[in-house]
Parts: sequence; structure tokens; C-alpha cells
Amino acid sequence: MSRERSRPLILSLFEMASVVHLAPGMWTHPSDRRREIGDLSFWRELGQLLEHGTFDQLFLADVVGVYDVYGDGLETPVREGFQVPALDPLIVLAAVADVTDRLGLSATFSTTYEPPFAFARRLSTLDQLSRGRLGWNVVTSYLGNAARNFGLADQIEHDERYRIADEFLDVVYKLVVGSWESDAVRADAAAGVYADPARVHYIDHAGERFRVQGPHLVAPTPQRLPVIIQAGSSLTGLAFAAKHAEVVFVGGGTLEEVRDNIASIRREAEAFGRDPEQLAFIAGATVTVGRTEGEAHEKAREHARYASHAIDHRRRGPDLRRYRPDELVEDIIARKDDGYLMLIRGWRPGQVVADLQAASSRRDDRGPRPFTVVGSPRQVADAIQHWTEQTGLDGFNFAQRVSFDSIRDIVELVVPELRSRGLARSSYRDGETLRERILGTGPLPHGSHPASRYLDPAQLAVPAPQFAVAATPR
Amino acid sequence: MSRERSRPLILSLFEMASVVHLAPGMWTHPSDRRREIGDLSFWRELGQLLEHGTFDQLFLADVVGVYDVYGDGLETPVREGFQVPALDPLIVLAAVADVTDRLGLSATFSTTYEPPFAFARRLSTLDQLSRGRLGWNVVTSYLGNAARNFGLADQIEHDERYRIADEFLDVVYKLVVGSWESDAVRADAAAGVYADPARVHYIDHAGERFRVQGPHLVAPTPQRLPVIIQAGSSLTGLAFAAKHAEVVFVGGGTLEEVRDNIASIRREAEAFGRDPEQLAFIAGATVTVGRTEGEAHEKAREHARYASHAIDHRRRGPDLRRYRPDELVEDIIARKDDGYLMLIRGWRPGQVVADLQAASSRRDDRGPRPFTVVGSPRQVADAIQHWTEQTGLDGFNFAQRVSFDSIRDIVELVVPELRSRGLARSSYRDGETLRERILGTGPLPHGSHPASRYLDPAQLAVPAPQFAVAATPR
Repeated sequence: MSRERSRPLILSLFEMASVVHLAPGMWTHPSDRRREIGDLSFWRELGQLLEHGTFDQLFLADVVGVYDVYGDGLETPVREGFQVPALDPLIVLAAVADVTDRLGLSATFSTTYEPPFAFARRLSTLDQLSRGRLGWNVVTSYLGNAARNFGLADQIEHDERYRIADEFLDVVYKLVVGSWESDAVRADAAAGVYADPARVHYIDHAGERFRVQGPHLVAPTPQRLPVIIQAGSSLTGLAFAAKHAEVVFVGGGTLEEVRDNIASIRREAEAFGRDPEQLAFIAGATVTVGRTEGEAHEKAREHARYASHAIDHRRRGPDLRRYRPDELVEDIIARKDDGYLMLIRGWRPGQVVADLQAASSRRDDRGPRPFTVVGSPRQVADAIQHWTEQTGLDGFNFAQRVSFDSIRDIVELVVPELRSRGLARSSYRDGETLRERILGTGPLPHGSHPASRYLDPAQLAVPAPQFAVAATPR
Repeated sequence: MSRERSRPLILSLFEMASVVHLAPGMWTHPSDRRREIGDLSFWRELGQLLEHGTFDQLFLADVVGVYDVYGDGLETPVREGFQVPALDPLIVLAAVADVTDRLGLSATFSTTYEPPFAFARRLSTLDQLSRGRLGWNVVTSYLGNAARNFGLADQIEHDERYRIADEFLDVVYKLVVGSWESDAVRADAAAGVYADPARVHYIDHAGERFRVQGPHLVAPTPQRLPVIIQAGSSLTGLAFAAKHAEVVFVGGGTLEEVRDNIASIRREAEAFGRDPEQLAFIAGATVTVGRTEGEAHEKAREHARYASHAIDHRRRGPDLRRYRPDELVEDIIARKDDGYLMLIRGWRPGQVVADLQAASSRRDDRGPRPFTVVGSPRQVADAIQHWTEQTGLDGFNFAQRVSFDSIRDIVELVVPELRSRGLARSSYRDGETLRERILGTGPLPHGSHPASRYLDPAQLAVPAPQFAVAATPR
């Protein structure tokens, strides 16, 4: 599918509040700052850098357990700092809210282990305080240790986790969209009426997995529902994305695979009654850019000296032959490229093996590759443009090799090139919520999104009111 | 007990991220700003005002349900804005962390409905990001609607809630204090070792109510455990405070009651093997102060015109005769003074009736009263000093009538008077955690506190390390 984008590319930083996100060992690079993730100044400076580059969002990945899956318990992940320690993403983003102004703040949260009522309240609190900048990357978790941190002997079966997620989202929709009508808050001091009781409702949800009375504890916020992001790659995960996601963090090892995944999710969204244009697609990207191609390759070689291969060098990863070809594999860390570990979730071994073989066979290809691009600003922009035009991608989720060098290079070298081609914005629009900026529509979920069934008629027509008094622009 | 305090008084603001906390109707006052609680500038300015007054902490109350207890469902609490909407306190405090520097940030959180693993991680994340400024007011919840928001038909029985709380705290202690040894983080780039696996441990908690494998997901933070605050007033609640609390928000209708409560909790703490001097006691206080006594009374009269009596005027509160004299009463809103509603938790009707009668009989007393003082800066300071000396109180938790007028008056008129008497500090000490400032000891739980059993020997000797790189002072 060749496709012209009418809106600027979605620029997202794929991060995690951990010393290692996707690139083990890179924290040992002399200019890397990831050891400072517990320091607010790290997040403040990162947020300001991203706003300088008019990025759409800071997207924080998360896990709620450790990768004690290599046969040596805590040894490997703890020594490597591999996604442990990991700070709570919603707390980190709340701390960033007051030191940024326009940046979208997207947190990963799992629907498997915590009650929806309390989580919905946290979402609405941060959507309110950030003036509509919140996104939620919905995951169902895949680590055995995560299950054991929440009282279970082992993981809940994969498809059941998605059934839980489906009902969890329904509860959240009822709370944040359904229980307070858009004009419920009157704040009428003369009459002594803060809110109109006729417009605030119990939700009385009584489903198979959750019972929640409501009402929601937070009055309508700018977006009501944070932008729903999803990255499932299993068949169940793809169906879930088609039903619920507004932004899909799409997978695929080749241009063709990415294009096919996008087309297939759009088709499936349409089958759910959704407007398929109301889904945006972003792909992971690791970009190493220099002022010249030579400088970029020199950087990549220098970075590679700090990469750790401990995880797969020690164990060479799990033995895929242990699995039946169509068995679902929950948590594999595989080496996909030099010093570059990829987490493969919910794929079947046949696919994983094929993907790793394909990645290996492409190691010396010269053309643009998904996920990994090394080159001059022009070469990187060419790759981005090529991929966007050929796949229908709406943007990219950039991972860093060296924090903040990687993202600073993108902001300083790639973004100006994208701007000059009309592919990236040059400034933010005042008062725009994250949903408006990313999807180009209103601040509330689109009329074809499953959350919209809980909108009252007034909500369909007018922007949601905030708390009564206008915010002072910063 | 007459008692000399060697440290400054604890000054705490008792707030809630809600349009109404304890004073219904006051949001209708022309200069009240509580309608802005969804706006970060409200919290930023409040935090800066409190730091100007060298306050110890901003203490946020919380509920996880609505007060649909007056026979008309949502009608009364929604119309009055009575503790609904209510934002999530931990998210609000995280947002305040980067715009304040020294202020303690204390959040209420209930141990009854959410899993300890995820909550412990949120606590540690904020203790880390705030550089050791976090407190946790432990509650067990008391509203039927709260239970129904979390899948239950009604509340869990009172004493069982405290048994859950006791095990919940034990899990938190094991995670935040026990699972990472103090020197586990090496951050040794040359050796490629982020943390020492021999010093990070599963907790393998398997109790009656929780099963949690661990390890904790956050490396040692400045305080490890936030300052534990508790306000229980039932017998079970008092025993819980004696065992776990470092700061007790103590109740009592008279000077003698407050003094006796403090003495009795200290005795009970000693019976638990704790150093009774390692507990600090604060009492609620509503202060209306003017430059002169006349001005203060004029303010109080002006404030009273905006107070709402709707809640008890409509229903006159619950009929206490419905209860057996020694039955535990979970959630009563009683009118205790003009336009001043008091929440009475877990008391028995005999006590409640006696307390209300006592409050009523004292309405025309002239002497200093707990909770409510109207007067000149000198009169207010006299009352504070008298109460402190006579009861053993360590400080006060001030509630506002008009936000921020009430607290600004205290900062501008009362704090200077307290400073001139040597009762309040004039500046903060660099690098001090909330625990050090309030209890005058080290940053970690005291050796006689139940959390200390999980400290490794090195932790008893040295301050806990933070993430590897030193924070830049703001």
C-alpha cells in the first residue's frame, strides 16, 4: 500500500525507567546517563529535549517482574541491570507533567494483576493534571515472576489474559467515559451546587471477572480516556489491537511484514465496526545518525564496543526446539542483531526461528531496514520516508543506544531534515490534547471506538469540560 | 505529661485532592481556590507556599469511594462535592515532586483492596524521585462503596482489615527494606556489573493473605521505607499505630484525651519492643488567625457564611441509637462545631455520643480548644505552645477553611511567631530526608521499628545509597 500522510509523522521515544531497556551494556558507555534514572533532573532534561524536537510522546515500557528465565535465577538480569531496577512508569510520568508542557506521556500498564477501579482513577488524575496528554499502552504481562509477585503460582494462560484485558477495558470505559456526563460539573457557587447528581451515575458493572459499582472518582478530564496504545503480536493480541487500540505499536521484520500487519489490523478494525483511519501505526526504530554516513558508522562501531552479549552469550537464549512449532512462546529474549536484543512476545517458534534467520540473512543488506538505521540525516530521513510511504506507517517509536546522545542526534540532525520535507511539525498547536495531535480528530474517543458507546449525546458534541477554572498557561 | 521539645514543631498541611475535604461549602467562598485542584498550578503554588513556611509536609487524605450513606445515594455528596471528585493522591504528589525541593509528600493509601507488590514499587519510585521526602498514611478504608468498587459485596470486617494491613505492611517491609541489600548497586562500568546478584533476594512471602515472590523492582531509595503515618482511633487501630506508626495523627476531644492517647500509644509501642521516643504525634487543627483577635473573629464569622450544613441538616446524621453501645461504627459524619463536619471512624456509639456532647458543652469555652483556634498570632501560638507542652504533641496537621487564605495566614502570621519562640525552624537542612527531619534520627527505619528486622548489617551502619550518580541540587 502506497499512502500519502496528511499529518506530521508521529515521533515517539521508546523508553523505560530502567538502567537497561533494550540495549544491554550501553549504560557502561562513558556519556550514557541511564544510571541517573532515579534522578528527576534526568527526566526533566529528557522531556525538555523531546519538546525541543516537537516529539509527540515519551512512551515508557514496563514489566512487573524480573527476567529470571535463563536458568540462573536473578543472576543475569540483576548483574546486567536488564530491566531491573525499574521504576513505576505512571509515577515517573506524573513527575514529568509539570516540567513539560506539550509532550504526550504514555505509560505501560498491565491489565492482569491490579483492580481496574484504582487504575482508572490514576489515569484520570494524570490526564487531568497534564491537560490531556496521557496515553496508555495496554499489556497483559508475560513473565512468570510477575505472576508470582501477585499471588499466583504461574502466569494466567495467554488467551484468558486477553479476555481479562477486554473486560478490564470495558470497566475503564464505563468509569472514565460513562459515569460522569460531560456537563455534570456545575461549580455553581451561588446555588451551592458543585456537581449535578442527576448526571453522575453508578456503573454497576457485574461481569465474569470484575464487579465494580462506581461512580468514577474523577470528574471529566480533557481526553476522558487516555489514548489507547497496544503492541500485541499474537493473533489474540492483534485482534485486541483491532478492537481497542488507537495507536498500534506494530511488529514485523521486513517492510512487507509491517505493511501486511497494518493492512490486516485495519481490516480487522473495520470488521469490529471501527473507522480504520482512526488507528495510527508506529514501528520501533533504532537510529544511529551522524553528520555524514561515515560519522554514523563510526558511532555505531563505537557503541558496539559497549554492548553486552551476556544474556545470549551465556545461555544462547532458550532452545526453540523444546517447543512445538505452533506452541505459544511467552517470553524470549533473542539476539537479533549485533549487541541488540529483541524481546519476542507471544510468537510461535516457527515464526521466531524464521524471523531470526531472516534477520541474520539481512545482516549485510544495504537497503533501509526496519528497527535499525545507520546513516547521514538524509539517509535516515530517506529510510523513514520510504518505510512510511510503502507500509502505511504513521510514525516511529525510537529506542536509544546511548542516552541521551541517540535522541539528541535525532532531534538535532533528523528532525530538521524531516521538517524540511514537510514530514515533521515545527511547533505544537496550543491546547491540543495527545489524541487530537496524533489522530487529528477531537479530544474524546472517536464515535466508532468501543468506548464511545458510553458517551452521552452532549459529549459527542462538545469538548469535555475540565475542572471549573481555566488553567494558567505555563 | 509536661514535656520540653528539643526539635522544631512538626508543621503539616492536612489536605485532600478534592473540592471539599473537611469544610463543606467553603469552595463557594469568593477567594477559595479549591475548584482548581485539577490544575497543576494549584499544587505548585501550594507547595511553594508551604516551603516558604518551612512546613514539614503536605499530607493528602483519601477515600476510594463516595459517601452514599445518607439515604439518597449519590445526591448529597455529589451536589456538595463532598470528597468527590477526588484525585489520586500519589499521582498528585508525584507531580509536585519536581516543583518543590524540601517539602515532605505524604499520601494516604488503603491496604485493603490493592496488591502490596505494585504499591511498594510506587512508594519506592516516589521516594527515589523526591530524594527521600515520602510519607505513607496507612488506612484500611471504611466506606461500603469503596468495597463495592473493588469487587466485594460490602466491607471486610473491621478487625480483619487490620489483620490484612498488618500482613500488607510486612510484605512492603520485606520488599523495600529486605530484598536489596544497601550496597547491592555497584554500577561498575569497567566490570559491566550493574548490581551484585548475591545481594538481591527473592522475598518468597507466603502468608495467610498474600503470596509475593519478589525481589522488589526498585533499588534502595534514600529512606527505603516512607515515613509510616497512622490515624486509627479504634482499639485495633491504636494497637496498629503502636506497632507500625512513626507519626501518629492522634485524636481526642480535649487536652486530657489527647495527652492520654499519646501516653497510651507510647506505652503500647514500648510493649511491642519499640523505643517510644521514636513515635511523633500530631493533632488536627483548624486555625483562623488575623493580625488582631478582632480581625480573626471577623474572618471566622465571614467564613461561616459560606459553610454548608447540608449533610447533617438534611439527615441529621445517622441515628446512633440504632447501634448497640459497644458496636463498632464505621463511617459517621457528625457535626462537631459550627459548619465543621468531623469524620468519626471506627468508634463505638458510646464514645461518639459522649464526644459530641462534650464538643457541644464546650462551644462557649474561652480557652484553647483542640482542632479549632481563632485569634491573633500570639493567641494562636499560645494555644499551640500550651497544647504541645501539656500533651506531648510534636506538631499539628492544619486543615484549611479557605484555600489558600487559611494556610497563607498561618505561614505569614503564625510561623514567624513560632520561630521567634524557638518552636519552628527558620530553614531546612540540606539533604535531609523526611524521616530525619521529623524524627531526628537517620534516614532509615529505627532499629526498634518492625521494618528494621529486614535490614542487613551494612544498612544499620550506613545511609542507603541512591542510584549511582549524585543528584544535582535544584
